[in-house]
Amino acid sequence: MKKVDHIGIAVRNLDDVLPYYTETLGCPLLKIEEVESERVRVAFIDAGNIKLELLEPMDDSSAIHKFLEKKGEGIHHIAFGVENIEQRMDELKEKGVRLLNEQPKNGAGGALVAFMHPKSSNGVLYELCQKQ
Amino acid sequence: MKKVDHIGIAVRNLDDVLPYYTETLGCPLLKIEEVESERVRVAFIDAGNIKLELLEPMDDSSAIHKFLEKKGEGIHHIAFGVENIEQRMDELKEKGVRLLNEQPKNGAGGALVAFMHPKSSNGVLYELCQKQ
Repeated sequence: MKKVDHIGIAVRNLDDVLPYYTETLGCPLLKIEEVESERVRVAFIDAGNIKLELLEPMDDSSAIHKFLEKKGEGIHHIAFGVENIEQRMDELKEKGVRLLNEQPKNGAGGALVAFMHPKSSNGVLYELCQKQ
Repeated sequence: MKKVDHIGIAVRNLDDVLPYYTETLGCPLLKIEEVESERVRVAFIDAGNIKLELLEPMDDSSAIHKFLEKKGEGIHHIAFGVENIEQRMDELKEKGVRLLNEQPKNGAGGALVAFMHPKSSNGVLYELCQKQ
């Protein structure tokens, strides 16, 4: 892996949290969008060399809702930027890494994404993220 | 904040985890060092645009030991790279952010570091990190 694209952070309410990032930390808001497939509202924050992806659940069916219930607000995942996601998934599978997705799925920012099981990564949820 | 320097990740045993990063993910190991003041053994992993800082507790007195007991292995903190840490600490305090350190302290890699209280940051432990 040659590059971290973003860090995902679970929050209960984007509007409550955004002023902390934009005003207190002085990191610009890039955009807000809804990812229907994941049932999350996402704010992209510019942290210079990477982005911070603030994730608010749209309803109880969202994986982010479950994360918040179990662990509370905090860091959710680290996303590596990759160029050929299917090839990288195959390589990882060959090395014994358990993936949470059989196929890449649509993520925020129009990217193709796939997650690695935290049990393969000593408790860290890593994402592969290919911009289109 | 203009740059993320590294992401800190708590692990039980560096030697067990390192092959996952260096071989499976293909990220080079930059160096390993002990930070006496924090009672941690630290491996710096090159993830391209940022570093991953793997943190193994040297004994039960380490904050990383307490983190592992409470939450298990996983992402511990996000560190912003800054140039004038004392000035940034003063600015954050003026904006109402609670800091965990009154003064910068010596961290890994010969850096000066200070942490922001996760309650100020919606559950995320942020570090300020000034390279010397």
